[in-house]
Amino acid sequence: MSKRIITISREFGAGGHTLGKMAAERLNIPFYDQAIIDSAVADTGFSPDFVREAGEYASSTHSFLFNLVLSHSVTAAPGGELSNYDKIYIAQAKTIQSLAEQSPCVIVGRCADYILRERRDCLNIFVHADTAYRQQRILQEYGEREGKTIAERLDEKDKKRMLYYRHYTDREWGDIKNYHLTINTAVIPLEMAVNWIVDAFC
Amino acid sequence: MSKRIITISREFGAGGHTLGKMAAERLNIPFYDQAIIDSAVADTGFSPDFVREAGEYASSTHSFLFNLVLSHSVTAAPGGELSNYDKIYIAQAKTIQSLAEQSPCVIVGRCADYILRERRDCLNIFVHADTAYRQQRILQEYGEREGKTIAERLDEKDKKRMLYYRHYTDREWGDIKNYHLTINTAVIPLEMAVNWIVDAFC
Repeated sequence: MSKRIITISREFGAGGHTLGKMAAERLNIPFYDQAIIDSAVADTGFSPDFVREAGEYASSTHSFLFNLVLSHSVTAAPGGELSNYDKIYIAQAKTIQSLAEQSPCVIVGRCADYILRERRDCLNIFVHADTAYRQQRILQEYGEREGKTIAERLDEKDKKRMLYYRHYTDREWGDIKNYHLTINTAVIPLEMAVNWIVDAFC
Repeated sequence: MSKRIITISREFGAGGHTLGKMAAERLNIPFYDQAIIDSAVADTGFSPDFVREAGEYASSTHSFLFNLVLSHSVTAAPGGELSNYDKIYIAQAKTIQSLAEQSPCVIVGRCADYILRERRDCLNIFVHADTAYRQQRILQEYGEREGKTIAERLDEKDKKRMLYYRHYTDREWGDIKNYHLTINTAVIPLEMAVNWIVDAFC
């Protein structure tokens, strides 16, 4: 049952990023979030801003093609050149596969649970919470932002993540079947959840 | 965050019943499974066999009416007499509400998470696992049965539970939003899950 890789998917504001970081610190293993993965992808030549934007953008190419491209190490989908968005997804996936190969680690976001689905050593976690709790947490952690209410930001972020995940994986984001453990952080404190992750990892 | 009531919903063969029993023993609190709840309902005058059968049967009355009947302590739905199936659901719900009122406890099945949704002291857990793992566990725990393969039994039980839950609650069985903690027991051993439940309870 021992696991080497922890993947964390999370609703916006539920504390999944913080939880991943805490778990990585406790386990003394690397922590990779979206920013780190995007930065690795940008090293391959894309503009960092474009990589960041693409990371929550779902292109029109079907996930079947991405899997084909990924598994055959080719650079184009049958019938045509891949768009830049598609190329970035593939670069992200290869980055994640390579990071997982290097050493035990915690990876947050970017469909890591799906990208590493063939491995038997992943513990896949989904972190969620009630809307009211997340709104309060977003306010505390990130503060107000001009032009958008917290409810709008929350809704927009979750929708992007849901569409991105659905598009690239053909699965439903937050579907219980894709995770070994799901935690509502409005009820389970992060400190307790970290202990559980450490338990399951060792 | 301290919780008094633990409700467990579970896929057939995933070990939810065993987990609930283990948690109740560790916490030294009563354990109520379907058989115990059905027996309490049978004491109100229904035949025990009929109560057991009704417990996985979804009648044609809409859940809205059950909520109305439950919350107003009346015995008939507006516009007509309730069927025996409906009456049994209501008796089960009242039994569960009364058990939860008496003392901390573990309740397995029978939509307890939904029936107790107004309480703030419930920890709602969903226990699931991959099909192959559950098939193997069913074989070990319950053995073969004449006339049906294990895959058929598993499929039939899950479908009944899913329809029963959907019918009486207007929610989806296994929808992450309805649980504070979900556990895949093919990856998280029951002994570990019990420790976590004890953690969250205390």
